[in-house]
Amino acid sequence: MTNPTAAMIVIGDEILSGRTRDSNMNHLAKELTQHGVELCEARVVSDDRAAIVQAVRDLSGCYDHIFTSGGIGPTHDDITADSVAEAFGDHIDIRDDARKLLMDYFESRGVEATEGRMRMARIPDSATLIDNPVSIAPGFTIRNVHVMAGVPAVFEAMVASVLPGIKGGAPLLSQTLRIDRPEGEVAGPLRKLAETYPDVSIGSYPFNDKGAFGTNIVIRGQDGASVDAAMIALCEEFPNP
Amino acid sequence: MTNPTAAMIVIGDEILSGRTRDSNMNHLAKELTQHGVELCEARVVSDDRAAIVQAVRDLSGCYDHIFTSGGIGPTHDDITADSVAEAFGDHIDIRDDARKLLMDYFESRGVEATEGRMRMARIPDSATLIDNPVSIAPGFTIRNVHVMAGVPAVFEAMVASVLPGIKGGAPLLSQTLRIDRPEGEVAGPLRKLAETYPDVSIGSYPFNDKGAFGTNIVIRGQDGASVDAAMIALCEEFPNP
Repeated sequence: MTNPTAAMIVIGDEILSGRTRDSNMNHLAKELTQHGVELCEARVVSDDRAAIVQAVRDLSGCYDHIFTSGGIGPTHDDITADSVAEAFGDHIDIRDDARKLLMDYFESRGVEATEGRMRMARIPDSATLIDNPVSIAPGFTIRNVHVMAGVPAVFEAMVASVLPGIKGGAPLLSQTLRIDRPEGEVAGPLRKLAETYPDVSIGSYPFNDKGAFGTNIVIRGQDGASVDAAMIALCEEFPNP
Repeated sequence: MTNPTAAMIVIGDEILSGRTRDSNMNHLAKELTQHGVELCEARVVSDDRAAIVQAVRDLSGCYDHIFTSGGIGPTHDDITADSVAEAFGDHIDIRDDARKLLMDYFESRGVEATEGRMRMARIPDSATLIDNPVSIAPGFTIRNVHVMAGVPAVFEAMVASVLPGIKGGAPLLSQTLRIDRPEGEVAGPLRKLAETYPDVSIGSYPFNDKGAFGTNIVIRGQDGASVDAAMIALCEEFPNP
C-alpha cells in the first residue's frame, strides 16, 4: 500500500535572507509522518508572485497534498492568497464568511477593522476556510493546496485543523540503533542489510559525542514485521553497539 | 547592479520525515547575504537519485550558483555524488587526488580504509575538490554546483572554503525598526512607504512579546542612502514605535 504524498512550500524572503530560521517544515514533517502521509519535497520561495505561482503549479500536479506557510497576513508583502488564486485561475476578493469571522473578532476585542486587516479576508471563490483558533484570520484549502500562516503558533494550529480531514495511510514505523562506531566501519554491513531487506529504508546518521564518532541507524517502513526483522539482523551484525 | 543568484538543495530523508531539523539552510542564507549573493530558492529532496538529478538540472540552469548539502558520506544511502555526476552526464569513480587525501588521513589516524570510506573519494571527472578541514573527505564543485556534506560542522567548513572563490555583489543592507503595535495597524502606512521607496524591500514580521502584539519592520536594499531614506520616513510615520 502506498501512502498519500505531500509537498510543502515555505514562502518568505526572511527565510532566504537568513533573518528567520524556519520551524514550520520540521513541525509539518513530523505531523505528516505520524499521520501516514509522505512528505516528498519542500521548497522555500521568496515573496514573489511569479515564484509562488510557479511552485504551486509545479507541485500541485505531482503530489496528493500541498501545504504552504507564510504570506497571508495584513501587510503589502503578504501576497500568498492572491498568488495561489492566480495559480488556479480563480477569482479572489474579500469573502463574506471570512469578513464575518474577522469583524466579530475585531468587535469583541475593540480592534479597528483597518484596510490591512480586512486583506486577511481575501479568499479565492472556490476555497474552503481553514480554522484558526489562535488569531481567527483563516487559512484556506483550494483544490489540493492548504494555505496557512507563517507564524509558528498559527501554522501549527492550522495544521491541527486540516489534518483530521486528510486521509492518512499507514504511519511510517521507525526503529533506531545507536552504534558507537564511525560510519565508515558500519557502511559495509549496512549495505548488505539494505539489499537483504528491500522493503524497509535504512538510514545512517553520523554523530560526534564528546569527540567520539558514532552512527545512528534508523530503519523505517510501513510493515512492522519487516522493520522488526531488519532490526534483529542489524543487532546480530553489531552485538556490541 | 544585480547581485549573483543562488539556490540550495538539501538532500535527506531524515529532514523530510522530521527526524532531523535542518540548520544548513539558515547558515548558508546568512553567509550568502553577507557575501552579496542572493539566495533565491531552496529545495529539500529525498535520498532518491531521480529527485536529486531533477533538482540539479532544474536549478543549475536558473541560478549562478547551486549549493547542495548531504549525502556524500560512506554509506549506501549516500548517493549525492553519483546523482550530481549523472545530472551532468559526467563519469564518476574513485579519483586519485581524493584517494590520496583520504589514505594519508586514515594512515595518520590508524583507521582502516574500508570500501565504505573509499566511496568518499568518488568524484566526477570534471569536478574540483572542496577543502574539508574538519574530516578531510572532500566536497566538490562541478560546473556551478557546489556539493557539500550534511553534517553541520563539515557543511559550514566547506562553505567557508568555497565562498572566497565566489564573486559576490554588494552586501544586502538591512535596518530594523521594532514597533509595539500589531501588524494590522501598521499595514496601511507601510504599503504607502513601499510605493514611495520602490528600490528597497520592506518586510513586516509580527511577533508576540508577553501577550502584546508587535511588528518588526525590516528595510533591505543594496543602496545605503535609499535604505536610510526609507528608514527615516518610517520613523517619522511612527514617532513613538
